[in-house]
Amino acid sequence: METEKPLQGEKKYAADILSIKEAQFRINPYIHRTPVLSSESLNSISGRRLFFKGECFQKGGAFKFRGACNAIFSLGDDEAIKGVITHSSGNHAAAVSLAAKLRGIPAYIVIPKNAPNCKVENVKRYGGQVIWSEPTMKSRESIATKMQQETGAVLVHPFNDGRIISGQGTISLELLEQVPEIDTIIVPISGGGLISGVALAAKAINPTIRVLAAEPKGADDAAQSKAAGRIVMLPETNTIADGLRAVLGDLTWPIVRDLVDDIITVEDEEIVQAMRMCYEILKVCVEPSGAIGLAAVLSTRFHQNPAWKDSNNIGIILSGGNVDLGPLWESYNK
Amino acid sequence: METEKPLQGEKKYAADILSIKEAQFRINPYIHRTPVLSSESLNSISGRRLFFKGECFQKGGAFKFRGACNAIFSLGDDEAIKGVITHSSGNHAAAVSLAAKLRGIPAYIVIPKNAPNCKVENVKRYGGQVIWSEPTMKSRESIATKMQQETGAVLVHPFNDGRIISGQGTISLELLEQVPEIDTIIVPISGGGLISGVALAAKAINPTIRVLAAEPKGADDAAQSKAAGRIVMLPETNTIADGLRAVLGDLTWPIVRDLVDDIITVEDEEIVQAMRMCYEILKVCVEPSGAIGLAAVLSTRFHQNPAWKDSNNIGIILSGGNVDLGPLWESYNK
Repeated sequence: METEKPLQGEKKYAADILSIKEAQFRINPYIHRTPVLSSESLNSISGRRLFFKGECFQKGGAFKFRGACNAIFSLGDDEAIKGVITHSSGNHAAAVSLAAKLRGIPAYIVIPKNAPNCKVENVKRYGGQVIWSEPTMKSRESIATKMQQETGAVLVHPFNDGRIISGQGTISLELLEQVPEIDTIIVPISGGGLISGVALAAKAINPTIRVLAAEPKGADDAAQSKAAGRIVMLPETNTIADGLRAVLGDLTWPIVRDLVDDIITVEDEEIVQAMRMCYEILKVCVEPSGAIGLAAVLSTRFHQNPAWKDSNNIGIILSGGNVDLGPLWESYNK
Repeated sequence: METEKPLQGEKKYAADILSIKEAQFRINPYIHRTPVLSSESLNSISGRRLFFKGECFQKGGAFKFRGACNAIFSLGDDEAIKGVITHSSGNHAAAVSLAAKLRGIPAYIVIPKNAPNCKVENVKRYGGQVIWSEPTMKSRESIATKMQQETGAVLVHPFNDGRIISGQGTISLELLEQVPEIDTIIVPISGGGLISGVALAAKAINPTIRVLAAEPKGADDAAQSKAAGRIVMLPETNTIADGLRAVLGDLTWPIVRDLVDDIITVEDEEIVQAMRMCYEILKVCVEPSGAIGLAAVLSTRFHQNPAWKDSNNIGIILSGGNVDLGPLWESYNK
C-alpha cells in the first residue's frame, strides 16, 4: 500500500527520532537504564543470539513509565498543576501515578470496580487517586470526562499520543547503544505505542533493522489490521496476555502499517512456555505479555520463515513484570 | 581475638587482592558482568539505598560459576586434560560442569541418589557426567576418591580453595566499579567461599567498607563460630535456604574470623518474605539462599543496631536463582 508523502515541514507521524531523543534527555534523570540479559541456553534453543532488554526492571515494573514520564514532564507548569488523569488500569495507571508523584502533581486514575486488587494496590502505592467506575468502557470514559471537567486535569492516553510514543522509543536508543550489532527487534504489540516508538527510533538509526511485532492469537487485531490495510477491531479477545488486548489508535496505526515489518501471532501455550523459560533460565519475573517476544522467536512461524534466516542478533523486549504470583507463595505456606 | 602476623613473604590467607585481580582477568571472557538493580520502593522500606548485585543472572544461575571457572582455567593443560571432579551437588556442580565444558575437559559430578531431579538435570544440561552415590557424605567422599584415583581428575572443592575464593571475590571488583559509593556489603554465608572473596577484595579496595554475613537461624554455625572463636559444627541444620548448610573450612574460617564484621541471622519466614519482595518488586527470581541478604537488611537486628546506622549505601548479593517453581506452572495448567 502506498503512503502519501508528507508536505514539506509537516510531520509524517506523531513522533520522530528528534522527539524520541528529546524524550530521552527529559526522562533520563527519572528512569532506570535497564540491563540487557543473554543466555547461551536460549541462544542454543533458538539458534540465534538473543538480547533481552529488561523493561520489567523499569520503575513501576514495565516500559510504560518511560512514556508516562515523558508525557507528564512535557507539560507546562500551568497545565501540570491541575494534575493528570487516565482511565487505563494496569501498568500505564501505575506509571502515570509514579510519574505524577515525581512531578509533584495529582494523578486521577479511573478504575473499574471489578479490577484485580493488585492493580489497585499498585496505583495506590505510587500515590495515584483511585476513582471508581462501573466495569464498562462507557462508564470509565464518562467518569474520566467528568473528572477532567471538574479538575482541569490533563488526559494521558496509554498509547495514542506522540509524547507516549516518543517515551517508549527511548528503549531503542538504549538497546542499540548497549548492543550495536542488533539486526532485528521483536516487540509485543497491543495499542501500538511501544512498537511505534521502538520502530521509529530503530529505523532512523539503521533502516535495515527488522522490527517484528509479537501478538497473541486470541487478540490478533494488529495482524488482521496489517492484512486488511486498515484498523480492524475484534468483537472479543481471549488471551492470557491481558496487557495485549488494546486496539491500535489513529496515531499508532500509520507507524505500525509502514514501519513494522511483520507480525508473529502465538498461542497462549507458547506464551506460558516462554514465560517459564524467562523465570527458569533468565531468572526474570515477566508477565505473560512480557514473555511474548521470546514465544515469537521460538515459534515455528518464526524459524521456518526463510525471509528471517538472516535475523542473527535479535533484541527482545521483556516489556513488563507485573503478575500475580499468589500460587507460588501459597506453596511456601503449606 | 588476636591473629598472628604473617611471616615476611608468607601469604596470610588463601587468596588476596592480587589473586582476585588475576582471577578477574582469567574469567572475564567467560562470565557475565551481572547488572546491579535498585528499587525506590525497597529503599523506602529499608530506609537505606540498596544496590542488588544480580548473581542469579550469572551463567549457571549463581555466583558459583566465577570460582569454578577460575579454578578450572587455572589448571595446567597436563592436569586439566584428565578432567575435574566434585561431590557437591547443586549450584557448584552445575558451575563445574559448565566451566569444564568451556575448557573442553570432562567433569565428574558425584550426586547422591536422593538428589532432587532439577539438580541432576542442571548438571546434565551443562555436560557433566553424573556418578551416583549413596545419600551419605561418607559414600559421596569415598566414591569421589575412587573416581579421582581411576581418572586422575582434579578435585574442585566448592569453597575451601584459594582459586574458588579468588573467583568469587571478583564480584566485589565489579560491584565497587558499578557503585563506588557502597559502604556496606551483605553476603550470604555457608562454607564461606563467597564472603571470603568478597571481603578480601572489598577491604583491600577500601578498608572502611563493612562486610556483613547473612545466615539462616536454622544453620547458624558461622555465627556460633564467630562467637566461639573457632569453627563450630552443628549436629543438624533446618532451613529453607538449602544452599546455606555447609560448614566453614580451614581456609575460609580465618578470613571470616578476621574480615567479616558481623553475622546477621534471620528466620526462614523472613527469607520467604524477602524472596517474595525480590520477585514482586525487583522482578528477579532468586532462590531462598539468594534472598537472605535482603532479609537481613530488613530485619530488626539490622536496623536497630546503632553501630550500623551509618550503613547508607548497601550492596546486597543476590547469590543464585535456581529454585523449583513447579507450583507456579501448575497454576497455569488448571
